[in-house]
Amino acid sequence: MQKLKIAVVGFGNVGRGSVDAVKASPDMELVGVVLRNKTKIQRVQSVLNDVPVVTDFRQLEKPDVAILAIPSRSVPKVAAQYLNNGISTIDCFDIHGDAIIELRDDLDIIAKQNECVAVISAGWDPGTDSMIRTILEIVTPRGLTFTNYGPGMSMGHTVVVKAIDGVEDAISLTIPQGTGIHRRLVYVKIKDGFDFDKIAEAVKKDPYFVNDETHVVKVEDIKSLIDVGHGVHMERKGVAGITHNQIIEFTMSVTNPAATGQIMASAARAAKKQAPGCYSLPEIPPIDFIHGDKRNLLKKLI
Amino acid sequence: MQKLKIAVVGFGNVGRGSVDAVKASPDMELVGVVLRNKTKIQRVQSVLNDVPVVTDFRQLEKPDVAILAIPSRSVPKVAAQYLNNGISTIDCFDIHGDAIIELRDDLDIIAKQNECVAVISAGWDPGTDSMIRTILEIVTPRGLTFTNYGPGMSMGHTVVVKAIDGVEDAISLTIPQGTGIHRRLVYVKIKDGFDFDKIAEAVKKDPYFVNDETHVVKVEDIKSLIDVGHGVHMERKGVAGITHNQIIEFTMSVTNPAATGQIMASAARAAKKQAPGCYSLPEIPPIDFIHGDKRNLLKKLI
Repeated sequence: MQKLKIAVVGFGNVGRGSVDAVKASPDMELVGVVLRNKTKIQRVQSVLNDVPVVTDFRQLEKPDVAILAIPSRSVPKVAAQYLNNGISTIDCFDIHGDAIIELRDDLDIIAKQNECVAVISAGWDPGTDSMIRTILEIVTPRGLTFTNYGPGMSMGHTVVVKAIDGVEDAISLTIPQGTGIHRRLVYVKIKDGFDFDKIAEAVKKDPYFVNDETHVVKVEDIKSLIDVGHGVHMERKGVAGITHNQIIEFTMSVTNPAATGQIMASAARAAKKQAPGCYSLPEIPPIDFIHGDKRNLLKKLI
Repeated sequence: MQKLKIAVVGFGNVGRGSVDAVKASPDMELVGVVLRNKTKIQRVQSVLNDVPVVTDFRQLEKPDVAILAIPSRSVPKVAAQYLNNGISTIDCFDIHGDAIIELRDDLDIIAKQNECVAVISAGWDPGTDSMIRTILEIVTPRGLTFTNYGPGMSMGHTVVVKAIDGVEDAISLTIPQGTGIHRRLVYVKIKDGFDFDKIAEAVKKDPYFVNDETHVVKVEDIKSLIDVGHGVHMERKGVAGITHNQIIEFTMSVTNPAATGQIMASAARAAKKQAPGCYSLPEIPPIDFIHGDKRNLLKKLI
């Protein structure tokens, strides 16, 4: 069997999760890890032993697929680079709404030009949750779906707080209140000479927080609060045909980077089975993500 | 917009659910209902008003898709008939394991010969649950999934009990005991002159019941016990990458024929978007089942 050659780009939490998932996949081979920052090579190399760690993917054996474990805002540019070199990409772009559709349009053109595949927003939300939300509407085309995140650490919200002037370190927790309403618990360690009240005010006014009940708490240490567990609870009550009150729920409690990395690795497998172009997860047959003989898989999974 | 022309074959519980779902779908047109039994035409016609009710589908305007709301054992033959006439088919064949794969092999050849599509096992289990089971393995490739059915009336088990000599009427309820273990509660009305103990013994010895804790109860009336609500609770605990204890659950409480009929109608829509051949639900992109502009749907669902 020809193994799928994978490069992992980035080695933060999700990068590590992706590396673990690729190494644990019997049908994949990790050709290397690509870092942006040259100064980190030695440290990452010492963790990864014999896996090549480089700053330019052209230094590696050419991968079939690059898993982009990088911030969402870097995805459009970096994905285009890989696609233009004939390498399919997987990202976990997580800015919901129009931005995902724009990314899909842009990468679709580039992927088709280069006869490769871009799978976008391949985390758990957006990602597998998007597939679940779609399936809920197969059963009940009319009704409401509520997605309740957490309890867990929101990477996106944490980044926003860390960027506020005077914040030395921070984490933002998402606490589900049901029916898609969330409370935000923000813990900040502030730099000497800065005013906590002003920082708390800045957090609450930020577009990421302004619509949610937000509590800001001053602490002396953030590291001891970090737990990358996260979860989701999706609830739908809707109508099948003309029959109301059909109730469906989906609940997940996961280690966030491990789950995200695994889903991206699974998506790399699916990428090789699609025609050239750009795909979000609800546009791909679920079976394409799974390793193994299709008939045997279907016998078990149908 | 050209509406998708649908014929519904059969008018039992699931047939009614399918008719309701097709009528409630803005992109579908019900061209008629096909019955096996001529004597029922008048009664069904009186329920369906201006919808043509026939015993031979060739009496109808040619549909794009036939929804086969018929017993599983009739599916292979009836599906082949429609496919051989260039009509795509949807069934809810529910005999798990090898039988589904054999059906898929057989119909795949016939569908391709006739350039149409067969979507098989398009209920909720097998069906949308099969898609969910697959997605659980995208997130956690290693681990165990338990599918717990009920509480609710099992059509398959009920049919088996009704076929036992001396049984006038019956229902079989499935009670979930967790980790995929089920209790069966069987209520029977027996014909005069038959021995209840012998019938109870026959139920418990049947392959459908022999592995489950089964209780058989004698009652005077079955009709008053019928509630077609059903449900499922799927649980998976598994490994993402190298990280254990990832926990995922899916729970559904539905009116069985309405949900089944709706999923079959949604599958009719998906059938028109696939290349010729036979497909189970995990082999189809979830978004293909949903009505509406794809970009707008993705904006909402991703």
